[in-house]
Amino acid sequence: MATLGLIEYQDASEEIRAVYDEIMATRQTDWINNFWKALAHDPATLKRTWESIKQVMAPGAMDALSKELIYLAVSASNQCGYCIASHTAGARKAGMTDAMFAELMAVVGMANETNRLASGYQVEIDDRFRTP
Amino acid sequence: MATLGLIEYQDASEEIRAVYDEIMATRQTDWINNFWKALAHDPATLKRTWESIKQVMAPGAMDALSKELIYLAVSASNQCGYCIASHTAGARKAGMTDAMFAELMAVVGMANETNRLASGYQVEIDDRFRTP
Amino acid sequence: MATLGLIEYQDASEEIRAVYDEIMATRQTDWINNFWKALAHDPATLKRTWESIKQVMAPGAMDALSKELIYLAVSASNQCGYCIASHTAGARKAGMTDAMFAELMAVVGMANETNRLASGYQVEIDDRFRTP
Amino acid sequence: MATLGLIEYQDASEEIRAVYDEIMATRQTDWINNFWKALAHDPATLKRTWESIKQVMAPGAMDALSKELIYLAVSASNQCGYCIASHTAGARKAGMTDAMFAELMAVVGMANETNRLASGYQVEIDDRFRTP
Amino acid sequence: MATLGLIEYQDASEEIRAVYDEIMATRQTDWINNFWKALAHDPATLKRTWESIKQVMAPGAMDALSKELIYLAVSASNQCGYCIASHTAGARKAGMTDAMFAELMAVVGMANETNRLASGYQVEIDDRFRTP
Amino acid sequence: MATLGLIEYQDASEEIRAVYDEIMATRQTDWINNFWKALAHDPATLKRTWESIKQVMAPGAMDALSKELIYLAVSASNQCGYCIASHTAGARKAGMTDAMFAELMAVVGMANETNRLASGYQVEIDDRFRTP
Repeated sequence: MATLGLIEYQDASEEIRAVYDEIMATRQTDWINNFWKALAHDPATLKRTWESIKQVMAPGAMDALSKELIYLAVSASNQCGYCIASHTAGARKAGMTDAMFAELMAVVGMANETNRLASGYQVEIDDRFRTP
Repeated sequence: MATLGLIEYQDASEEIRAVYDEIMATRQTDWINNFWKALAHDPATLKRTWESIKQVMAPGAMDALSKELIYLAVSASNQCGYCIASHTAGARKAGMTDAMFAELMAVVGMANETNRLASGYQVEIDDRFRTP
Repeated sequence: MATLGLIEYQDASEEIRAVYDEIMATRQTDWINNFWKALAHDPATLKRTWESIKQVMAPGAMDALSKELIYLAVSASNQCGYCIASHTAGARKAGMTDAMFAELMAVVGMANETNRLASGYQVEIDDRFRTP
Repeated sequence: MATLGLIEYQDASEEIRAVYDEIMATRQTDWINNFWKALAHDPATLKRTWESIKQVMAPGAMDALSKELIYLAVSASNQCGYCIASHTAGARKAGMTDAMFAELMAVVGMANETNRLASGYQVEIDDRFRTP
Repeated sequence: MATLGLIEYQDASEEIRAVYDEIMATRQTDWINNFWKALAHDPATLKRTWESIKQVMAPGAMDALSKELIYLAVSASNQCGYCIASHTAGARKAGMTDAMFAELMAVVGMANETNRLASGYQVEIDDRFRTP
Repeated sequence: MATLGLIEYQDASEEIRAVYDEIMATRQTDWINNFWKALAHDPATLKRTWESIKQVMAPGAMDALSKELIYLAVSASNQCGYCIASHTAGARKAGMTDAMFAELMAVVGMANETNRLASGYQVEIDDRFRTP
């Protein structure tokens, strides 16, 4: 179980419920996943993390789906089990198809391979890639 | 300098030139960046890596720009200096604006933060996130 | 189960028991956790690792609790499941409260975020930060 | 140079200057390091990151020095060059001595070693370490 | 379960069966492990990944066992649970003894420790180590 | 420069010189690389790290070259610039040819790719891979 346990809605303080309510409203769901229930033991971190996520994941120059795909790509690259599971669900909800998932993973795999080839071969940055 | 040095076009074998030519044709450029010149000391790896990249990065269920953004996101998350420089250039060529770059980095940063929060708090995967 | 299995006290050689005894005496406990029982298949690594840990974790310029917190912070950042579980227990025994745990994780999360922002934006080291 | 360049105080908008001013006031310094000048191209991320750092690094259950040490430990473990340089400076300003630095690095090194031993040997989590 | 599920031999297309058959023939086994069954949802990635593995793992300047040991070393260093389990089995089949496994893990552990010491202390690369 | 600076032989204490002498004797060289000179500010860590390295890298079930190759593989996978440079030199001294280097990097690259594919697809460990 989570280190500090999970705080369910019915057991939550007003402050925590306000965040839970906003998460459900923003995501148009009627439940809260374990990540937030675990963080709720630290209301300041719960609130700050949620508000940061909300700001960062809002559509802007990139659309919502693209952002979800990048979140999943990073989570897969970092091999975070919980995050892969939750953001696979999140990306699907935002429109990720099975074909997109497969292409995403193929890119994540290749990037991890060539990152090590570039570092392992001690390749110097090309002048043309340097910002003037 | 790169561990085994760099192989310039004029010094390359037929086999290597064939890969260089295809890279330049596919990318519509007239130069080869150091990564490929370093790998060229191992022609089998040069050819395999290029063909894999070409296959993986071709537009499919995801478009070319989205794939470049994911490549850059993984490279930034892995903190590979060469790869960040080269894929920032690659993503820009594919259409990434400064605003998209900034949003991309914001997502990469948040994913790295919450990956550790989820792992550090030992959060269990929600049943709803498990594939049936 | 662990790759090479676990060696229980009653099945251990004299050499291994000597390490187990010292671990229990140093930690003032009457049991050995699985990490050591797994390493015991390689007595040289068991002994070397224990002696290194004992030296490194002894109070010095930093107190024991601060060292346990740092061990846990690195384990959470690396997302090592076993290590997070065992060092959460270890840090609590050394005096970590729930509030300290929550603050620790918040710092670990932020550091992981800003590490990628600094790398992703290719920020150059300020002259003032360079050692003369 | 940083991907999007650096925004100096004299070239900054009101919004950015307000963050710069608060950073200097909080840290009691008269200069801004490159990290913030690079992020300033994305004022929303600049402001959010600063406010998060300020909240997370404020003394609470852990004092300011302990938090700086953890930030540096994570940065060293992640091998982020910029972050190691800047947080070594930050930790020193908060009171880290050379002896503390050396002990910190010794713990970071050991944690990285045993994290891989635990994972590599596939050690199962002890029942006593599981949260009930 | 795997995100897209597993494709068993009897349910596989001709294209996928051809890869499965080659994997079993090359490895002289009569079964396919889950990794390939999961990838089979993306036949292009299945085929490319298998052909790359086959090329890379074939004996050359290094023998098959040495390559398996390196694969396991990287997987342990990356803390990939599935990969540690599968490549421990693969390395054993190629001839890894328990003593070799233990020595391998000891090296992986030390490398992870000294990697962070070198980075954390900001050690500059010696001129003698630079490729001329 | 290294955070605490480098301690040259002529400026070193008896205790540090003893370690330096042993490093040079064991490695049959007449110089000390920066890593040790940086660690020398913490004589206990200098001595412990050297003795651990000496024990771990001594030929046993695996020969010296195989161990150097694994050290380099992990350093490349971790993208530690200093360590890649120093262990490339070390592996060459132990007999690594350019062809072996290239094959090593190819394996490191593939392992990093498939580690993420296995994690990203949430592949379950096969029963046959589990230790009974």
